[in-house]
Amino acid sequence: MRFNILKSDPGTKARTGVFETEHGSIPTPIFMPVGTAGTVKGIHQGDLKNEVRAPVILGNTYHLFLRPGVDVIGRAGGLHRFIQWDGALLTDSGGYQVFSLSEQRKLTPDGAVFRSHIDGTKHTFTAENVVDIQRTIGADIIMAFDECTPWPCEYKYASNSMELTHSWLDRGMKRFLETEPAYGYSQSWFPIVQGGTFADLRKQSALKISEAGMEGNAIGGLSVGEPEELMYEMIEVVNEILPLEKPRYLMGVGTPVNILEAIARGVDMFDCVMPTRNGRNGQLFTAEGIINIKNEKWKNDFSAIDPGGDSYVDQQYSKAYLRHLIISGELLGAQMASLHNLRFYLWLMEEARRQIGEGKFAAWKNEMVYKLSVRL
Amino acid sequence: MRFNILKSDPGTKARTGVFETEHGSIPTPIFMPVGTAGTVKGIHQGDLKNEVRAPVILGNTYHLFLRPGVDVIGRAGGLHRFIQWDGALLTDSGGYQVFSLSEQRKLTPDGAVFRSHIDGTKHTFTAENVVDIQRTIGADIIMAFDECTPWPCEYKYASNSMELTHSWLDRGMKRFLETEPAYGYSQSWFPIVQGGTFADLRKQSALKISEAGMEGNAIGGLSVGEPEELMYEMIEVVNEILPLEKPRYLMGVGTPVNILEAIARGVDMFDCVMPTRNGRNGQLFTAEGIINIKNEKWKNDFSAIDPGGDSYVDQQYSKAYLRHLIISGELLGAQMASLHNLRFYLWLMEEARRQIGEGKFAAWKNEMVYKLSVRL
Repeated sequence: MRFNILKSDPGTKARTGVFETEHGSIPTPIFMPVGTAGTVKGIHQGDLKNEVRAPVILGNTYHLFLRPGVDVIGRAGGLHRFIQWDGALLTDSGGYQVFSLSEQRKLTPDGAVFRSHIDGTKHTFTAENVVDIQRTIGADIIMAFDECTPWPCEYKYASNSMELTHSWLDRGMKRFLETEPAYGYSQSWFPIVQGGTFADLRKQSALKISEAGMEGNAIGGLSVGEPEELMYEMIEVVNEILPLEKPRYLMGVGTPVNILEAIARGVDMFDCVMPTRNGRNGQLFTAEGIINIKNEKWKNDFSAIDPGGDSYVDQQYSKAYLRHLIISGELLGAQMASLHNLRFYLWLMEEARRQIGEGKFAAWKNEMVYKLSVRL
Repeated sequence: MRFNILKSDPGTKARTGVFETEHGSIPTPIFMPVGTAGTVKGIHQGDLKNEVRAPVILGNTYHLFLRPGVDVIGRAGGLHRFIQWDGALLTDSGGYQVFSLSEQRKLTPDGAVFRSHIDGTKHTFTAENVVDIQRTIGADIIMAFDECTPWPCEYKYASNSMELTHSWLDRGMKRFLETEPAYGYSQSWFPIVQGGTFADLRKQSALKISEAGMEGNAIGGLSVGEPEELMYEMIEVVNEILPLEKPRYLMGVGTPVNILEAIARGVDMFDCVMPTRNGRNGQLFTAEGIINIKNEKWKNDFSAIDPGGDSYVDQQYSKAYLRHLIISGELLGAQMASLHNLRFYLWLMEEARRQIGEGKFAAWKNEMVYKLSVRL
């Protein structure tokens, strides 16, 4: 087994574990910074490793497929070598972006035909070729092709969409099991639970995904606009079924509060663009609450960005300076805010693991959920 | 004297020296990275110090005055503290930006009335208040207010403009000598030679500026579109007159070749946005020539960005990766290219000092001028 559970929290369904890859161990719960096009926006690889201390980052197959292209990544010897990242990598399957970013997309039983949002060129993703593409990209964890159902969504649509995702699952798994890693190190393939916000569909999908018996399982199609309570309910329904002994990855989620609530419900892995995207726009997450650095109140506040933070930007620079940089649209503002937010997310995961380890997660989580929601 | 000449080149007018400030010694010839709004675009202060190894950077009074405003910088205790930069700082006077960036500017004998390019608010710069503003910003070297004459330009316009700059010089110097530094450490004030591309005006102006007897002198109004040979000729005319024992600062110049040619003509200090601005657009300067990283030829070139470079990006990342980042408009591409180019400029200055020190500058300069112009 690649995944070992170390400790389970007595008061919640939270647990700590370690997922082993040939690019390092991933302690869980973990947050994975999003490196869309082969870069976590605004962050040097050295800072990602030494300051953010991220053991694993994400790449987006859709973006990488369009630019620089799978041929270039293949010639480079895979994405790790192309971007000079020696930690672990996970790639999504491109499904989400095909439906959210591409132009003139058309679903077929085989997959999706779409036009690039960059230059309008026409491409096809299938349940099989996204396995091949991710083999060439060379991520340690690769994902099944799925349709991410929107919200709100009719039951019938969600049901049909889930069936399509399940048929792709069978085909993708077959291709995965028939093929070999491209670069000598092993790759895991995670199938994805869908089913919209309908509990019975989510149960069906979780059963189907569990039967695949892969090394980890993902929950997709949440945090797409539905009320948070509904998201938490779906996570609970799904995690009743997904095997306890395998890691559970909640895709694209979310705020620090969302993540703590999901950890309490037995989720182990997370990714989200929020720390970088919101950071570029001046929103900072801290252990004391949320800062909108653009606010006039920070104009003459020369205290450290985050006195409790442990990345170099937190202590070195002031709120007033960061405010000036963000308001002026300066690159360094985006760099600082992104680094701060990512380090905060990773710190939050470290702290969650520590609290679970000490059996005190439930009380800590409730306190943090309150503090993290404060607007400073 | 704050400036000591260490060595003069036997074959050219090049010389090495040291300009002492209370924020460190500046070895000359030196290139000063431009930190327009209190940040060298895309570069953390730590990298500026440890990777670029810049002993001095620039700030632009026009930009800083508009954002974050002199009040904020004053409350912070000066720009050094505001941006957390403990090296030396030079600020321009805002003259150049008033004429190139602002809206509805109007010249008066007192200075310039202009509207902000950011929000249209109306402001006035005078020969006196730009001294006060720069006192509050707290740069180690502050500049006189001048009108930068455009090119081409009628003789009459250049002559009148020079007279105006000279009258501002007298007024600015009076204010400088009547006032004290704001933060305990001393500030130098450099007057600026103008006169367009007319040798007789340049001589007049150089005489006037020399008579001011300040700790250093600047040459403005060049590299504004005139042929390079004309720029070199004006530098020669001016440097015949400017005192040998004071540093000479050629404002806003230029390409690596321009800088070496100006060093050969006795210039000591330079600044330019080229390494950062052109870097963001994918132009890399190297000791072997110029790279346009967007070119198709680099698509599958996995060799180091600059095998001869000594910043961490040069060895760690490939040309193919940087090309991908720049073409994709990724922040990290701008960060990498800016860091590479700035380090290259600083390396070029170190090497120039070494060659001057060894009395071999002339031959080295001729070889480099050829190599630096090659398009790779």
